Amino acid sequence: MILFTRGNPAEEALPIGDIIDCANAVFRREGKILFQYGHYSGYAPLREWIAQRFGVLPERVLMGNSSMEFLSFVAALMMKPGDTVFVESPSYDRAITAMRRSGVRVVGIPLERDGVNVDLFKKALQRSVPKIFYLIPDFQNPSGVTTSLEKRKEIVRLAQDYGFYIVEDSPYRYLRYRGTALPTIRELMPDRVLHISSFSKILSPGMRVGFVLLPADLAPQFHKWSEDTYIHPVLPTEGIVNEYCRRGLLDQNIERLKALYRPRMEEMLSALAQYLRGVQYIEPDGGYFISIHLPGEVDGHSLWKHCRDFGIVLTDGRGFFPDGGGEHFLRLPFSALTPEEIEEGIRRLAKAIDHYRR
Amino acid sequence: MILFTRGNPAEEALPIGDIIDCANAVFRREGKILFQYGHYSGYAPLREWIAQRFGVLPERVLMGNSSMEFLSFVAALMMKPGDTVFVESPSYDRAITAMRRSGVRVVGIPLERDGVNVDLFKKALQRSVPKIFYLIPDFQNPSGVTTSLEKRKEIVRLAQDYGFYIVEDSPYRYLRYRGTALPTIRELMPDRVLHISSFSKILSPGMRVGFVLLPADLAPQFHKWSEDTYIHPVLPTEGIVNEYCRRGLLDQNIERLKALYRPRMEEMLSALAQYLRGVQYIEPDGGYFISIHLPGEVDGHSLWKHCRDFGIVLTDGRGFFPDGGGEHFLRLPFSALTPEEIEEGIRRLAKAIDHYRR
Repeated sequence: MILFTRGNPAEEALPIGDIIDCANAVFRREGKILFQYGHYSGYAPLREWIAQRFGVLPERVLMGNSSMEFLSFVAALMMKPGDTVFVESPSYDRAITAMRRSGVRVVGIPLERDGVNVDLFKKALQRSVPKIFYLIPDFQNPSGVTTSLEKRKEIVRLAQDYGFYIVEDSPYRYLRYRGTALPTIRELMPDRVLHISSFSKILSPGMRVGFVLLPADLAPQFHKWSEDTYIHPVLPTEGIVNEYCRRGLLDQNIERLKALYRPRMEEMLSALAQYLRGVQYIEPDGGYFISIHLPGEVDGHSLWKHCRDFGIVLTDGRGFFPDGGGEHFLRLPFSALTPEEIEEGIRRLAKAIDHYRR
Repeated sequence: MILFTRGNPAEEALPIGDIIDCANAVFRREGKILFQYGHYSGYAPLREWIAQRFGVLPERVLMGNSSMEFLSFVAALMMKPGDTVFVESPSYDRAITAMRRSGVRVVGIPLERDGVNVDLFKKALQRSVPKIFYLIPDFQNPSGVTTSLEKRKEIVRLAQDYGFYIVEDSPYRYLRYRGTALPTIRELMPDRVLHISSFSKILSPGMRVGFVLLPADLAPQFHKWSEDTYIHPVLPTEGIVNEYCRRGLLDQNIERLKALYRPRMEEMLSALAQYLRGVQYIEPDGGYFISIHLPGEVDGHSLWKHCRDFGIVLTDGRGFFPDGGGEHFLRLPFSALTPEEIEEGIRRLAKAIDHYRR
């Protein structure tokens, strides 16, 4: 069975040996700090390292137990039940869930190959102005799309004109296999963007070490909310990450991961070109995912339900679409599959698609 | 300056050497699991260890990043804004904050030397039935009070008659320095009690490894809420705790902690008897705290505000009282002070109290 489901790092992506060395060193040196009660904003040396890397003040860096929980903080601190949030459509299913469970109305703006459709964004703004626009501008989950510089600037203009904040979720940004990095939306507009990121995709997800770079006016209440939620985040894993970063291992690891994942993406693209002629797919420049729009004549729901008969497992595309649809959308993660599995998986997918052509 | 403020473990209470040994062993053996994405309920071997220790099914154990966050889960899943929760008065200030920020009305039931005043509890029930009663039955924070068996049974009867749940917060339970352990409220009524606990006080707070034992009917939604909040809790620290427990080190460590803390409590009690004759205090049987009720003629607010002039730092007692009051309440943690500091601190406190006698 070949799993085209969760976006996990490959097993060989985790630098376990280096992590153990770092844990040993930092637990010996800083154990009395890391295993004791600490500060609600997180382990100070790591906050400072992040602040320096991103060129912000440490006060604007809040560490947390994974970055995803900050979406609950956003909903609690910036929104009332019934308020509107815009997301890309499709978007990260867990982000949609986190917003919805707080009673927030989630509106999807259709995504194109280079970011959201700006005309439809403007039309949606005529109907209701959101408190925030949540997006994943680099190698989006689930689509693989990267928002173009032109559209980043347009989004910033709209945020300024209409007065909403932007939540920029950026876990894949450092895994670019082609082309040149674009400025983040935070860099274009530091005072209205919450830039969320983590070490899950570039070091280890099990550690759940995430962080958010906050606008100055929102920072104090976010730090307080962290304290009132769990006193402070888990410290020993933050200590390990700090040691890893301070030793200069992170950038090396990112290069290693690119060398690991790039051929997987290329293999999937060439298998798609070979086996799925005529099917539309998004060609990403990095990250974990390629996505496909099945032709209208394919019964996507049956394909998803019965894909195991063909030796593959797919994610139900509908979870990524806040306003319905998605039966014809396939997210294909390539990160945790070998090139051989990818080639074989796409061959099986082609067979399954042919079977469900009406 | 002698700090009678936060309830931290003593520095020498943290078994750093053993923690490092356990980290090394478990990261080498289970690194590929602990540093990868995991299960939303927590690291399975530790869940199973806890389930066995408490005699419950693993499905009823939910692990989390500290136990405190479960109070937010309780508010989100069991209450609507405007609903009522009963707490002891005084109660843990962070618990009061966590409930209140969710829009829940917090009503305090006055606490006596052996638990809440049952008559006043019944009167409060005539006015409004809470969704939950939150209490800390063993060595309560902040008072040091342990709820008697008779009152535990009475509370269970009232919960059954009026149909509310009980949240039993139990971080100090294993630190008993005198007398015999009483049954937990969960043991008296397994199906309507959420038993919250953690390894913060018996191993390490920096790791933030907490857990809740859930009633069967509530367990599925709590597990789902965990997933939708942070996908899964931090795993490497749960791996360390599991290794520590499986090696049989936890019970040894608890005995070591009792031997460390018992003389501190005794020292504080004898210093109180010596220096604060005529002042009422609660004599605890374990935990971290002794508490004092200042005589009415002492200006408690000025004492708290100017205590630094006498070389001590005190916590403002008002934060522990949900319905006002607390100016005459002092919480005195003894866990992180040496017997010498305790004796000197109480001597200074006596001087300060005399100064603010009207």
